[in-house]
Amino acid sequence: MLHGDVPCSRVGETWVHRAGPREKIYFKPEEVNAAIVTCGGLCPGLNDVIRQIVITLEIYGVKKITGIPFGYRGFFDDGIPEMSLSRKVVQNIHLTGGSLLGVSRGGPNISDIVDNMQKRRINMLFVLGGNGTHAGADAIHNECRKRRMRVAVVGVPKTIDNDILLMDKTFGFDTAVEKSQRAINSAYIEAHSAYHGIGIVKLMGRSSGFIAMHASLASGQIDICLIPEVPFHLHGPHGVLRHLKYLLETKGSAVVCVAEGAGQNFLESINSRDASGNIILGDIGVHVQQETKKYFKDIGLPADVKYIDPTYMIRACRANASDGILCTVLGQNAVHGAFAGYSGITVGICNTHYVYLPIPEVISYPRNVDPNSRMWHRCLTSTGQPDFI
Amino acid sequence: MLHGDVPCSRVGETWVHRAGPREKIYFKPEEVNAAIVTCGGLCPGLNDVIRQIVITLEIYGVKKITGIPFGYRGFFDDGIPEMSLSRKVVQNIHLTGGSLLGVSRGGPNISDIVDNMQKRRINMLFVLGGNGTHAGADAIHNECRKRRMRVAVVGVPKTIDNDILLMDKTFGFDTAVEKSQRAINSAYIEAHSAYHGIGIVKLMGRSSGFIAMHASLASGQIDICLIPEVPFHLHGPHGVLRHLKYLLETKGSAVVCVAEGAGQNFLESINSRDASGNIILGDIGVHVQQETKKYFKDIGLPADVKYIDPTYMIRACRANASDGILCTVLGQNAVHGAFAGYSGITVGICNTHYVYLPIPEVISYPRNVDPNSRMWHRCLTSTGQPDFI
Amino acid sequence: MLHGDVPCSRVGETWVHRAGPREKIYFKPEEVNAAIVTCGGLCPGLNDVIRQIVITLEIYGVKKITGIPFGYRGFFDDGIPEMSLSRKVVQNIHLTGGSLLGVSRGGPNISDIVDNMQKRRINMLFVLGGNGTHAGADAIHNECRKRRMRVAVVGVPKTIDNDILLMDKTFGFDTAVEKSQRAINSAYIEAHSAYHGIGIVKLMGRSSGFIAMHASLASGQIDICLIPEVPFHLHGPHGVLRHLKYLLETKGSAVVCVAEGAGQNFLESINSRDASGNIILGDIGVHVQQETKKYFKDIGLPADVKYIDPTYMIRACRANASDGILCTVLGQNAVHGAFAGYSGITVGICNTHYVYLPIPEVISYPRNVDPNSRMWHRCLTSTGQPDFI
Amino acid sequence: MLHGDVPCSRVGETWVHRAGPREKIYFKPEEVNAAIVTCGGLCPGLNDVIRQIVITLEIYGVKKITGIPFGYRGFFDDGIPEMSLSRKVVQNIHLTGGSLLGVSRGGPNISDIVDNMQKRRINMLFVLGGNGTHAGADAIHNECRKRRMRVAVVGVPKTIDNDILLMDKTFGFDTAVEKSQRAINSAYIEAHSAYHGIGIVKLMGRSSGFIAMHASLASGQIDICLIPEVPFHLHGPHGVLRHLKYLLETKGSAVVCVAEGAGQNFLESINSRDASGNIILGDIGVHVQQETKKYFKDIGLPADVKYIDPTYMIRACRANASDGILCTVLGQNAVHGAFAGYSGITVGICNTHYVYLPIPEVISYPRNVDPNSRMWHRCLTSTGQPDFI
Repeated sequence: MLHGDVPCSRVGETWVHRAGPREKIYFKPEEVNAAIVTCGGLCPGLNDVIRQIVITLEIYGVKKITGIPFGYRGFFDDGIPEMSLSRKVVQNIHLTGGSLLGVSRGGPNISDIVDNMQKRRINMLFVLGGNGTHAGADAIHNECRKRRMRVAVVGVPKTIDNDILLMDKTFGFDTAVEKSQRAINSAYIEAHSAYHGIGIVKLMGRSSGFIAMHASLASGQIDICLIPEVPFHLHGPHGVLRHLKYLLETKGSAVVCVAEGAGQNFLESINSRDASGNIILGDIGVHVQQETKKYFKDIGLPADVKYIDPTYMIRACRANASDGILCTVLGQNAVHGAFAGYSGITVGICNTHYVYLPIPEVISYPRNVDPNSRMWHRCLTSTGQPDFI
Repeated sequence: MLHGDVPCSRVGETWVHRAGPREKIYFKPEEVNAAIVTCGGLCPGLNDVIRQIVITLEIYGVKKITGIPFGYRGFFDDGIPEMSLSRKVVQNIHLTGGSLLGVSRGGPNISDIVDNMQKRRINMLFVLGGNGTHAGADAIHNECRKRRMRVAVVGVPKTIDNDILLMDKTFGFDTAVEKSQRAINSAYIEAHSAYHGIGIVKLMGRSSGFIAMHASLASGQIDICLIPEVPFHLHGPHGVLRHLKYLLETKGSAVVCVAEGAGQNFLESINSRDASGNIILGDIGVHVQQETKKYFKDIGLPADVKYIDPTYMIRACRANASDGILCTVLGQNAVHGAFAGYSGITVGICNTHYVYLPIPEVISYPRNVDPNSRMWHRCLTSTGQPDFI
Repeated sequence: MLHGDVPCSRVGETWVHRAGPREKIYFKPEEVNAAIVTCGGLCPGLNDVIRQIVITLEIYGVKKITGIPFGYRGFFDDGIPEMSLSRKVVQNIHLTGGSLLGVSRGGPNISDIVDNMQKRRINMLFVLGGNGTHAGADAIHNECRKRRMRVAVVGVPKTIDNDILLMDKTFGFDTAVEKSQRAINSAYIEAHSAYHGIGIVKLMGRSSGFIAMHASLASGQIDICLIPEVPFHLHGPHGVLRHLKYLLETKGSAVVCVAEGAGQNFLESINSRDASGNIILGDIGVHVQQETKKYFKDIGLPADVKYIDPTYMIRACRANASDGILCTVLGQNAVHGAFAGYSGITVGICNTHYVYLPIPEVISYPRNVDPNSRMWHRCLTSTGQPDFI
Repeated sequence: MLHGDVPCSRVGETWVHRAGPREKIYFKPEEVNAAIVTCGGLCPGLNDVIRQIVITLEIYGVKKITGIPFGYRGFFDDGIPEMSLSRKVVQNIHLTGGSLLGVSRGGPNISDIVDNMQKRRINMLFVLGGNGTHAGADAIHNECRKRRMRVAVVGVPKTIDNDILLMDKTFGFDTAVEKSQRAINSAYIEAHSAYHGIGIVKLMGRSSGFIAMHASLASGQIDICLIPEVPFHLHGPHGVLRHLKYLLETKGSAVVCVAEGAGQNFLESINSRDASGNIILGDIGVHVQQETKKYFKDIGLPADVKYIDPTYMIRACRANASDGILCTVLGQNAVHGAFAGYSGITVGICNTHYVYLPIPEVISYPRNVDPNSRMWHRCLTSTGQPDFI
């Protein structure tokens, strides 16, 4: 729904709108007091989106742009000064990874945040984050509406795992797949240079295995790819370890790629959550490594196991060119959407078109790899791995 | 049309088929004598496609796979031995740029090539190349049909410029945009570190400006982007040079990105063609550089002009992860298509789906940047450049 | 001592000879049967040295060059065929990390190795490895002498830690320092983008902290550098943790670089050795990470700790240009030395000159960082860290 | 000589002093008004040196640090504001290439510069630049002495060519050799993927061939290396072109590396100088390319010539780790020297020791590659090239 009637409501309830500039804008640029906040973990491209939001706001004529430091926490922590943003400040931030504004998980309750926004007279809020952050953004939007504040709350989905419903891809994913190649190639070299070498690489992917699947396909160097969506046994006649034995005996070495959310059933339930509300996962990478060492020791076959966890070295990278373009368009569209008076929406690319989507539509559950999809079958063809059940 | 009726004919005349393995295969693997040839200039991903064709052929059970050296020329030059291909040979070739088989432009006439194929008993031919090469592949297909030879001729479009009709993108393009960033960033640093510095980068794009447009957008560092599809003046009140003067006076420096095929009207007609039949272009990059130096000398404003042509350093790169996946799928599909009995076809990605297309449909003319498209307008927003007419 | 008198004896007992080709050579090239073996862990440059030894042997006119697979183990394991080496085989191996020949730790006893060498008629043995491997090479040299075999045994010191006595630097070290920058920068970005972020990077350095010291200096992003040579407390008023608290309170974030051999006194003695005879170290990186988390939890100050262990991603890299040159000269000199009839020697760079050294001179104990050296003080100036005692 | 007696005189006349902090300092930190200026072309590491000078000045307690923009020109151009420098400003500038301050060639006369320094009360001047710039720094030092101003003028030699007398190496050189590998490898891939391919790479080196020599050695992919110090013929029975023909006929391809100052005798004298007073060289790279094309056309042998000039893409790189350390130590020592009261000196590394040298000692002429040196012979062994005379 457009602002025309009800200020800053969500566009319809379920429908998608084509993203882009609108003929009629809802805010007078000189009255805009925009804020940007980045939440959750790092993801390549955060600075590109921040930069493009600032540049596009300036093109509209906005003068007051504020960076909220360290996620929702920054609305309150008085020790950390907010950051005044302009083209000059953001000009080259996309050349560096991380977030200029800082990130954090969790934060104060919605009512307090909206109180604070009122105090600061913020009337455009751009929120970069994952599912939890978007739920927060939606709640802020609803609270603002309840208070009849004229505020546009616009999300930009940030998930390196590429697991947002309806979206072709999210920013940072392409970079993550690219940068995973280094780790995979290192594991391959370690495995092939060792006698009976086994390289294990853990990649991101809490509930979906897109990074592991794409990185395996791109590398051409993975023998076994394990993802959360496809159950597997480690032990037993059809288990991963038996296949590793077969690989050592036939090829002399093997490389395994495992998504962080895979095989959680093997791990003791830690049963706790981080500040974002995400379940803290057990470390499947370390588990596979230990079980592999133990297995080969038990059967008396020498095996030289090397384990690589490149997560933080991937997350902290700057966006590659493809993600750079995606971030640029998302950032531009976020501003166009806010100026058009949309609120409670998020931006994305859907069937190759850039769109605005109502937040609740995309956050109900994570998008998954379909084990019957062509892409997963291509991955299986590439690795040559059997079913592990 | 399937082989069932007429061996190795083209699939229908104008229609697109979904790519992938077929239940029924037309060739007995043990009777297949496959050949691969790469033509034209280098492009990131050639080795990925070669590798995947070989691996997929082996999965089908094919034993005889030959690499034809140095393009169509390799069918004849007796001094250069052909290359026997297997998984072992191709295992790691995708880690290096270039083409394992070598490339060249032009080649012998079609009839001679087909004679040679008959002599060697080749019944599957995979041709990697651009428009001219595909025209050749189509002619080979037609000649084989005329001679009632049971041969599958399958193309894989290779154009770093991304200028093939109907296709979302071609392999090597994403890598080219990525690797262009280095050159653009160097030009930016040279320009910003100099007093009144101007950096000029020439990028690939004979008749379409996709690389220049995407590279400019991704970098966020380009002030002026010039492409073949959008006419411009260098001189005059609305010309590029006057805008450069404005940029030096206001920002202190400027960075220009020019596609190799842009502004050919300014250059003396060389009026000759290379061995592939492509018109030899005048060097617009050098021209812009010289005119810029001359202009600022004439108006007495100091300007420090640096020119970078990274073409060969980009072409020779290995494919990035995104192109690696594209190449993998194209290579697999090329083999599936040949085994299904398709001939005179090429493989591609069309509206996010992998497909087989009849060769004549895609080679009639190059795909261009639409100057009214959203992407070009996003590029203009990013550079801030005016019309230069 | 030259072969002239006593075949393949060690050059003098303690003296250094300038490396390079000699006018008089001891072996007839056509009678040479050379073997190369690589032992221990991976190190950037192994392939460069192998390549250069092969190329230089060919320039001398040697035809028979064998690669022993997987370290000393390869002298015996009949399942792994030895590898015939030539310029063609090694032409581009330096573009990839790892070892073409494979590596392993430990191996059969000396007498068996020399039996095997006799059986294969090997009369030149090039051994790439660390202290343990060199001890083995020296023992082989002595055994050959005892048996009055005319064999030249020449070592090339391989230690990424740069901890060989008398030598300016060893190959792979410069690359390791260079590649550490990625991990350090990732830790810096993670730390600075988090609220009270602490990044911890563990780098190689079993008994000497050269990599950690140089990587810290080069990065300019390290606040605390911990090495084996400089004792420190974690806890207490002058401990590392108290300083981290100070850094969080004043700068908001901190980055720590710890060498793997540092602070071993804090770790339970594992008291076992790997196949090379090296003591298996406890994991100081994980220990510092855990103690840091615990400390800040105990004192109630929020801290976001990220830990990066890039070891395998550094070891598996190809050599950078500087190491490439070092490897080239070492490889050439190893062959010159063998042809001159030296045995029981190793090659190195000493006070900017390339030399031959008797093996026992360099393996008695590892070279260490001098805590009173200018370089360590420069490192302290750069980090700004106090004494932690 | 120390300031104690004669303020800011040069240390002795010809002698070298060990660099480092002194017990007694000549300036009171709170009275210091320091300025930094960068002159000439770009070189990797400029930002590292600027950064370290600023950080070290702050450690001494200096508050007033100014960046002079765009070389000596910045003393006067009122349009360009000077830049106030602090640790905060320079913290991450070493992660980017170029010069934060900007560079330019030439500049106003010495007397005017010193007038301006007096006006601004600058009493410490750090000058980063090449021979011409150092001559200017020495003249400034002498003029200050004449006027009895208490000013310390300290140079840091900046020449990517590594051609400063007495110095082991200069900053940026190691990075340049490293980054040259990309261009050489591209040329190698282009040459080897083409039928009768010839790749030509022009590298920096106006009067000395250190970059070309080291880059050739490191790459292992160069067949012909041409440098200013070693005369050669292109044509004739012993010329480069005849050898290229031999290489095409035997190996099928060839790669040439030519230093920009090589073979200037073949080029028409342009006989003019740039603003730094350097003779403008003819373009030997383009010349070799054209003569090669012409030669093979004349003799009727097909040859596919590709030319790469990566100069600006190398100059604009950030320093690698090895140069980062060198820059750090040089920057620290420059400040230590100024505080100790030295003036008219420059800093460097000499026989592995960091030293202060009187400027006149190092600028009389450029250091050259010795054609009789071991390193040049190693290069010849690596390329396998004959004498071209």
